[in-house]
Amino acid sequence: MWWDGKITRTFRCKLVQAPGNLGRLLAAIGEQGGLVGEIRIVTMGGTAMVRDITVYADDIRHVDRLVRLIQGLPDVELLEVRDEVLETHQGGKIAIRSRYDISSLSVLRRVYTPGVAEVSLKIKDDPSLARRFTSIRHLVAIVTDGTAVLGLGDIGPKAAMPVMEGKASLLETLTGLSGMPILLDTKDTEEIIRTVVHIAPTFGAIQLEDISAPRCFEIERRIQEAVDIPVMHDDQHGTAVVVTAALLNAAKIAGVRLAKARIGVVGLGAAGFALSRMLMSYLDTPVLGADIVPEAIERLKAAGGIPSDLKTIMGTADVVIATTGVPGLIKKDMVRKGQIILALSNPHAEIEPAAATEAGAAFAADGKSVNNVLGFPGIFRGAVDANVPRITREMLIAAAEAIAGFAPAGDIVPNPLDKALHKTVARAVARVAVEQGLNRDDLTGYFD
Amino acid sequence: MWWDGKITRTFRCKLVQAPGNLGRLLAAIGEQGGLVGEIRIVTMGGTAMVRDITVYADDIRHVDRLVRLIQGLPDVELLEVRDEVLETHQGGKIAIRSRYDISSLSVLRRVYTPGVAEVSLKIKDDPSLARRFTSIRHLVAIVTDGTAVLGLGDIGPKAAMPVMEGKASLLETLTGLSGMPILLDTKDTEEIIRTVVHIAPTFGAIQLEDISAPRCFEIERRIQEAVDIPVMHDDQHGTAVVVTAALLNAAKIAGVRLAKARIGVVGLGAAGFALSRMLMSYLDTPVLGADIVPEAIERLKAAGGIPSDLKTIMGTADVVIATTGVPGLIKKDMVRKGQIILALSNPHAEIEPAAATEAGAAFAADGKSVNNVLGFPGIFRGAVDANVPRITREMLIAAAEAIAGFAPAGDIVPNPLDKALHKTVARAVARVAVEQGLNRDDLTGYFD
Repeated sequence: MWWDGKITRTFRCKLVQAPGNLGRLLAAIGEQGGLVGEIRIVTMGGTAMVRDITVYADDIRHVDRLVRLIQGLPDVELLEVRDEVLETHQGGKIAIRSRYDISSLSVLRRVYTPGVAEVSLKIKDDPSLARRFTSIRHLVAIVTDGTAVLGLGDIGPKAAMPVMEGKASLLETLTGLSGMPILLDTKDTEEIIRTVVHIAPTFGAIQLEDISAPRCFEIERRIQEAVDIPVMHDDQHGTAVVVTAALLNAAKIAGVRLAKARIGVVGLGAAGFALSRMLMSYLDTPVLGADIVPEAIERLKAAGGIPSDLKTIMGTADVVIATTGVPGLIKKDMVRKGQIILALSNPHAEIEPAAATEAGAAFAADGKSVNNVLGFPGIFRGAVDANVPRITREMLIAAAEAIAGFAPAGDIVPNPLDKALHKTVARAVARVAVEQGLNRDDLTGYFD
Repeated sequence: MWWDGKITRTFRCKLVQAPGNLGRLLAAIGEQGGLVGEIRIVTMGGTAMVRDITVYADDIRHVDRLVRLIQGLPDVELLEVRDEVLETHQGGKIAIRSRYDISSLSVLRRVYTPGVAEVSLKIKDDPSLARRFTSIRHLVAIVTDGTAVLGLGDIGPKAAMPVMEGKASLLETLTGLSGMPILLDTKDTEEIIRTVVHIAPTFGAIQLEDISAPRCFEIERRIQEAVDIPVMHDDQHGTAVVVTAALLNAAKIAGVRLAKARIGVVGLGAAGFALSRMLMSYLDTPVLGADIVPEAIERLKAAGGIPSDLKTIMGTADVVIATTGVPGLIKKDMVRKGQIILALSNPHAEIEPAAATEAGAAFAADGKSVNNVLGFPGIFRGAVDANVPRITREMLIAAAEAIAGFAPAGDIVPNPLDKALHKTVARAVARVAVEQGLNRDDLTGYFD
């Protein structure tokens, strides 16, 4: 998207009330390369108007140039420049709240001692009651070691916290689940597995996030083997679900029959490998895979895929999905006529969608439209509601179909902030749980 | 307290409106051994009144007897019997909330991608910024392995969850901190230490809870050595602080000069040992200690205490503090005239306060008045606000003095639900941090 890699500032400007003044200001910002976002009115006076103008700039020096520019304009006074993103993060984005206001001793006696002892003893006698009488059911650990955060790479666990809190905020806003970031001070596979298994009794599900490949594969598998709650590495399966959903709609738009299509995946990291497996399972056909790491190719082969290379895939596949992290990897002259191209690397795609369609692609999209926020909230909510011991491939495919079905006609994905979407995904996941006999909670009434 | 070991039920009764009807009902409940708590009016009709009556009973069979009794009374209709404690726990007592309602894409862009990337990079470049721009600062881990929960013993981590959630609820209600229960599936000392150290980057402080002695001593010490945030085992130091506060006031009431007093501690578990160390440090005099476990005596000796036994302590000490878990251990004929006796075991004390004063004690109290809720919220809030790397003995003593000073004249402790108390404790802790040069955050304005 156009805002990738940009920084955001809010300029509060007082403009003399006269026709054309705002237009001239915006034009001047645009001439200096500043992109204008939201414009809000702060105050309306008789002779002047104060507005907050959100501007996307390349870097801090670009901001300085824009400031000097505005200061030099007639009829405009720059009142302040604010960093609203940073202001939003001040003090963090999540809080753990008591559901009760403990303002009297009678509440204290119910919530804490002595009342709590009776509840503890009930759970001791029947551990399954913990699901009813504690918060465990709705607590989802969001675990990271900070090794593969966004497109930023290994920035460490504390620098990953704003991203983990963002995911927690989304979980709560979209599904009501309580997401708890867990930052790990170790990158050692064994230590990560032991640590997560040791704290697992606290949670109803475990979301692994931004853990680099290839460690993420073993970490997810072995934690899942050791615990009886669902464990999902979002960068693998969440991404696979959302890309599959987007692909279903892209194929419809482009008139490509996926069941007959030749599919190539370029880049077999966490996302690319999980996506390849999901597509092979869903479409019952092997996909071609390319990666510069020989082990990644071996992994795909073991999973039933066909080792290939960029040139072969671009030259022969009907669908190309790229998750390489290499901007501009795909040149226009490599595009085959009628291809669907999903170039998903962020912040800069392997090929810009416009360039791909110009070169003959039937449909092209980049990574920003296929945001993971479309998937993980509903998947976890459904898994937790059904109380499944794990999330199966079939549940993930049901989630992908639910997301695809929710997109408006002509779009490849729905609005990620639509709560009805996440409810639909949760129900789809829970329905498969029932079909597979994996729900450990009665779901009577759940689908009404 | 009278309610220890009791279970609570709410009886909803419809009483014919006539003088004496309520009194007869309550008298009948009392004759059957039921203790009456709150009485609330539900509806007032012309001829009848519906009331909710909270009743404390010995056990479920006692409840059944009371039900049959009420059903047999004239002019009273028992509409329902509710377990309000259990109802309160339904669905858990805490929730993790987003501080922002992510209802538009412009909020999403600030809270999550792309805005979040800029914040992550800032923290990567300067990790100290994590304190300003994430929730780490206000997150307190409440860690337990479930081995020493209330007076219930080793009931396991999941059964401990209602207690941990209660502590989290209190932390938030009383100080605004976000308490996050962490339940451990291991009782192994090494595994506990590694696990807590590995997840420590997530938190601003670590509260260890209900971990049995003697493992708790090493676990606390070694975690604190490995991390640069405060670690406190509440059963040790929180209890020591609150008992010291109570003792300061008890001495005032009884007219005993603590500096000259001979102090004996009976029972040198987590609480008794930490208390002994705090009193020795604060009063600069060795305390006598008794325990049936030889290692516990050795530990006290190494800390500067004097090995003793129950008989010697009861026969010679001016102050006796018992934390043995053995109800009725202290007989009336063992009490020395003028003694202060704090018999702290729950739910049943080593000697009932009334019996102790009858036998000649100048002052006696049991464990319910010296609830840990008086201490840990303010201690953690002060430690986190000052950003100290550890909680020192001096900070704990300052907390004890602050709590003692907050008690109304004639009482040994203040109301634990008074938020002003916890603010006062937090300030006392932070002030010592400044005196000791341990505050890593500027506290300008904090004490205004």
